[in-house]
Amino acid sequence: MAESTNMRLRLPLICIILEVILIILFGVLVEYNDDTDAKKWNKNNSTDPATNEFYYRYPSFQDVHVMIFVGFGFLMTFLQRYGFSSMGFNFLIAAFSLQWATLMQGFFHGMHHGKIHVGVTSMINADFCTGAVLISFGAVLGKTSPVQLLVMAVLEVTLFAVNEYILLSILGANDAGGSMTIHTFGAYFGLMVTRILHRPNLDKSKHKNSSVYHSDLFAMIGTIFLWMFWPSFNSAITQYGDPQHRTAANTYYSLAACTLATFGFSSLVNPEGKLDMVHIQNAALAGGVAVGTAGEMMLTPFGSMIVGFLAGTISVLGYKYLTPFMESKLKIQDTCGIHNLHGMPGILGAIVGAVTAALASRDVYGNGLDNVFLEAAETSHWSAHTKGGFQAISLAVTLGIALLGGLITGFFLKLPIYGTPPDTQCFEDAVYWEVPGEEEDHHELNEVSTRNELEKLNS
Amino acid sequence: MAESTNMRLRLPLICIILEVILIILFGVLVEYNDDTDAKKWNKNNSTDPATNEFYYRYPSFQDVHVMIFVGFGFLMTFLQRYGFSSMGFNFLIAAFSLQWATLMQGFFHGMHHGKIHVGVTSMINADFCTGAVLISFGAVLGKTSPVQLLVMAVLEVTLFAVNEYILLSILGANDAGGSMTIHTFGAYFGLMVTRILHRPNLDKSKHKNSSVYHSDLFAMIGTIFLWMFWPSFNSAITQYGDPQHRTAANTYYSLAACTLATFGFSSLVNPEGKLDMVHIQNAALAGGVAVGTAGEMMLTPFGSMIVGFLAGTISVLGYKYLTPFMESKLKIQDTCGIHNLHGMPGILGAIVGAVTAALASRDVYGNGLDNVFLEAAETSHWSAHTKGGFQAISLAVTLGIALLGGLITGFFLKLPIYGTPPDTQCFEDAVYWEVPGEEEDHHELNEVSTRNELEKLNS
Amino acid sequence: MAESTNMRLRLPLICIILEVILIILFGVLVEYNDDTDAKKWNKNNSTDPATNEFYYRYPSFQDVHVMIFVGFGFLMTFLQRYGFSSMGFNFLIAAFSLQWATLMQGFFHGMHHGKIHVGVTSMINADFCTGAVLISFGAVLGKTSPVQLLVMAVLEVTLFAVNEYILLSILGANDAGGSMTIHTFGAYFGLMVTRILHRPNLDKSKHKNSSVYHSDLFAMIGTIFLWMFWPSFNSAITQYGDPQHRTAANTYYSLAACTLATFGFSSLVNPEGKLDMVHIQNAALAGGVAVGTAGEMMLTPFGSMIVGFLAGTISVLGYKYLTPFMESKLKIQDTCGIHNLHGMPGILGAIVGAVTAALASRDVYGNGLDNVFLEAAETSHWSAHTKGGFQAISLAVTLGIALLGGLITGFFLKLPIYGTPPDTQCFEDAVYWEVPGEEEDHHELNEVSTRNELEKLNS
Repeated sequence: MAESTNMRLRLPLICIILEVILIILFGVLVEYNDDTDAKKWNKNNSTDPATNEFYYRYPSFQDVHVMIFVGFGFLMTFLQRYGFSSMGFNFLIAAFSLQWATLMQGFFHGMHHGKIHVGVTSMINADFCTGAVLISFGAVLGKTSPVQLLVMAVLEVTLFAVNEYILLSILGANDAGGSMTIHTFGAYFGLMVTRILHRPNLDKSKHKNSSVYHSDLFAMIGTIFLWMFWPSFNSAITQYGDPQHRTAANTYYSLAACTLATFGFSSLVNPEGKLDMVHIQNAALAGGVAVGTAGEMMLTPFGSMIVGFLAGTISVLGYKYLTPFMESKLKIQDTCGIHNLHGMPGILGAIVGAVTAALASRDVYGNGLDNVFLEAAETSHWSAHTKGGFQAISLAVTLGIALLGGLITGFFLKLPIYGTPPDTQCFEDAVYWEVPGEEEDHHELNEVSTRNELEKLNS
Repeated sequence: MAESTNMRLRLPLICIILEVILIILFGVLVEYNDDTDAKKWNKNNSTDPATNEFYYRYPSFQDVHVMIFVGFGFLMTFLQRYGFSSMGFNFLIAAFSLQWATLMQGFFHGMHHGKIHVGVTSMINADFCTGAVLISFGAVLGKTSPVQLLVMAVLEVTLFAVNEYILLSILGANDAGGSMTIHTFGAYFGLMVTRILHRPNLDKSKHKNSSVYHSDLFAMIGTIFLWMFWPSFNSAITQYGDPQHRTAANTYYSLAACTLATFGFSSLVNPEGKLDMVHIQNAALAGGVAVGTAGEMMLTPFGSMIVGFLAGTISVLGYKYLTPFMESKLKIQDTCGIHNLHGMPGILGAIVGAVTAALASRDVYGNGLDNVFLEAAETSHWSAHTKGGFQAISLAVTLGIALLGGLITGFFLKLPIYGTPPDTQCFEDAVYWEVPGEEEDHHELNEVSTRNELEKLNS
Repeated sequence: MAESTNMRLRLPLICIILEVILIILFGVLVEYNDDTDAKKWNKNNSTDPATNEFYYRYPSFQDVHVMIFVGFGFLMTFLQRYGFSSMGFNFLIAAFSLQWATLMQGFFHGMHHGKIHVGVTSMINADFCTGAVLISFGAVLGKTSPVQLLVMAVLEVTLFAVNEYILLSILGANDAGGSMTIHTFGAYFGLMVTRILHRPNLDKSKHKNSSVYHSDLFAMIGTIFLWMFWPSFNSAITQYGDPQHRTAANTYYSLAACTLATFGFSSLVNPEGKLDMVHIQNAALAGGVAVGTAGEMMLTPFGSMIVGFLAGTISVLGYKYLTPFMESKLKIQDTCGIHNLHGMPGILGAIVGAVTAALASRDVYGNGLDNVFLEAAETSHWSAHTKGGFQAISLAVTLGIALLGGLITGFFLKLPIYGTPPDTQCFEDAVYWEVPGEEEDHHELNEVSTRNELEKLNS
């Protein structure tokens, strides 16, 4: 007997309890940072308002915000009857995750006299952490209940903060655009979760696990907003000045090169040379993922384009050849193909970051070296090679925590208490949503034409 | 006999006459302000361009602009056959209102030697005023002609400017995000208009007064852009520095908490625990409305989240229980449920603003107090309690002017000269638009399957 | 026999070869500019990061980026079965063009010791050039293969850079928003290309060369984003300070006035007074085009509104009366009507720019004159009248290069090697894309209703 999918008690309960806990913890732990607080900012009456971090970061924050809510949300509306859930659950778990991330990241990244300080930078970081959860959501899309997703978010945000703490605070890694912390982590966490939640009879919903014409156009809204704003994503929390500027430029060139590779290889792998919307919607974004670590470094436009081109290529090939293999042989049902968009390009990005860091020198960076590799300013015997090594270790740590975390989370999500959809009802909005009928006029029209046909034939 | 809905003379006439009047008045009255004018800005050759208000306000302006045109426009496309009108009339009345508002607000907010000064701040304020008109549009959506809407805009913008003048210039109220001036005003004005325009036989169009699957996804474009950019809306015209920064953060947290409340209560009020798109599209935004007044104050993230949670809750409950009651008993046909999204949350926001202001102190705000409560800088015996009182009076004034203004406007809009749609043709684009047929291939497909069916059955 | 439309070799080959060439040329020729390079920016340890051009230009760049990818992309999705191609090919040729434009513009606009310098300003300029290619794309939409479009982009970007060089560097013209360089050039280039590619039997695809209900709503996404962000487009590369501010304001007012003219005349030219989506989607934008040259000057809001009103008017009349004439008599098949949106308003903008420049004086501009007309600062006998003359010459040059360039490009595109669609398969995604079926549930529903009908009638 299938578990009931009725959410009436479960969803309100978890939403309200989680929010009440969040509110209490915010009340106890959170306060404005120095740039946000009326008293602290105006200690000195002569402070120039233009130096408030708000003006350096807020436009980037808004672009990141669009990527999280419109980008991820619409990207996942490609399924024919899962648009409400894609947009809606994306909205729900993002709204929860950004609050929970504020607490977890604040806790790990240094409390100030027992308080977590918030402002535009913490808001960007919270959105970043949310991004990782939404990547994992892509793997389990259509096969999970909203309660299950919220529980996954609770656990994933926590482990994200742990991993981020190890990378940034202990290993001193550079990862401003999150090739490791966001994309690699989110992807392998999600892949492990969907592996544990493997459904042998998922083909009962197979006919719904595909797009229709208009749903593919909705998904393009997500793709294009992600693509356009990725330069802001990668540069949002780099240092002021040349690093922000350079990161945006590198990401811009990487994505452009990635797009040409995507179109080329999408046509090449099709017997009739036809383009596949799945590739265009996803692989064209891999160039943003792959410069997430090295983007702030002196990668040069030339280097960025090579990286972008490679990322687009492996991503298309992954969709074509690796995803079917992973599904049939490894039992990894990856609805959105996050392994191709975030997994492999994330690893590529981590490697590119390690190599680029290992090649850094005061010759190339001048005084800017201290601005990109903050530790270099503090010690006279900073070594680019050692730095590169730590970057590589960071990738290994990320993979380890993601896979182990996904394993534990997956088993936790297998408990029969979340109201998950039965195999026949996956990828279907009607399970959790009031779904309206089809268009009125439309039916009338069809009925009329039907009637005409009938009259002709029956006469 | 139903009045003709042919717009051929009426719409061109009103559009062209209004625009010609606007152009003449702009020619006589409007000039660039000191930051926009070539001569005035460069009086001093050494002026630092970075201090131009453009760089402080323009990114926020663009976010507000997106909310007005994409946010409101797409939010109202949820109706199955009213997407052209929702987007189109939203576009038309917004383009008119922002010009008219520039004049009206300029007239009331201080002429400079007989001239109205324009620049990015006046552009934001004009967009804000436009927002109030679009809120009212939500109440009468589907039941009005474009000419009627333009006439409504002429009157509403004027009364908006009067109310704003009383609140900001006479009562010295704080209302940067417009909980009172925009949301409360727009909502109760619109509710009164729709009350006066009550259609006893509206159920003749009942089958069109609902959504279809894709129209709900289009509406989500509106919702999400409103949700994401609301921090910019509330902070767009606050003082530079910490107030802008703090307002954005408060709005961000309020909306996140509101979203969890919305999902929780939407599921709770449904017998099967299913989520309702109407709630997600609208109630999740109430958290932005409810911190429109207090957002710039030291509300704290904790306080913002409580306010957002309450706003989402009352909004969902309003959609479920209050709207049907208002329609059947009070004869208020509120198409978009603006009472739940803007009305009640607006009042909540005004009350929260009054209380937060009444609790303000130099202890908490430090020197920042003068930056938030500008009058405090001017007088040594400024009293937070008195301030709170004036905030409360401002709410009462707003409600009074909105209801009275809506009443007068409503009667004015009842004149049988506007080409309003008959009861049977409400919520229908074809009345005022050339509407294309359905998809070609699609029909062919249906015809083929029909033919196959027929052949099978007739054989 | 129709040429094969199979892209399997052609598209991958051209994508990969072009990208490899781009990467090599970037490797040899391109380096970061002074604000983007770590060493150069930090030469002086005391450089204030706030003075980095990134903070003046990046928000505008992102708005322009949205216009290029979302604006143009969605605007062209109005065709019922060409949404994948509209979005997809727009994406492809934009991603290529911005890279190629970086090289071409860098080559012409001054090499630095044999190197092309890149940063946010070059990124905006590259996007601008891309805009011209996308305008031309609008004329040939639905009738060209992706390979053909890439070849067109190669040639058009090159000629764009030549024309831009002559205008800006030789004639010293002002054209910050590109009325001439972008809109007039892109339009007449595209019109000439489509003239040469004239298809006498295009009416075989006539039934697909129109919109359906939802495709018109998708197109409105493009329209509205273009409309909203046009103030950023026109002001993106003007001087810092008052010129940026003034340009944004002028564009804002011009577009508002244009919108009222568009609605008025759209209704007026329809026998039943009904509005036409084609006009609203396109003509309402003409106001942005028409202040592309004069926007940075002291045009005043009053002047901007007059220009916008005129632009909207001629654009609607063009769609109604000129486009059919051009198609039947001049054999110019202009799918999107770019002549009405970019051609005529572009010429209007050039004329307005010439007149406004000719009327400039130190009386009106004060010291700001040197900021708008950079040559004025360098010579004591600068003459506004001469300047106006050079602006007029610039328009003539642009028309000449565009028409001649389009002619040559058109003949080049006639070669039977690109896999162009046959006349019966124009405006059809299925030629170049894997297109999914229609919605599952939907069919079931129709089949059920069909069956019911049948049973009733057959009983």
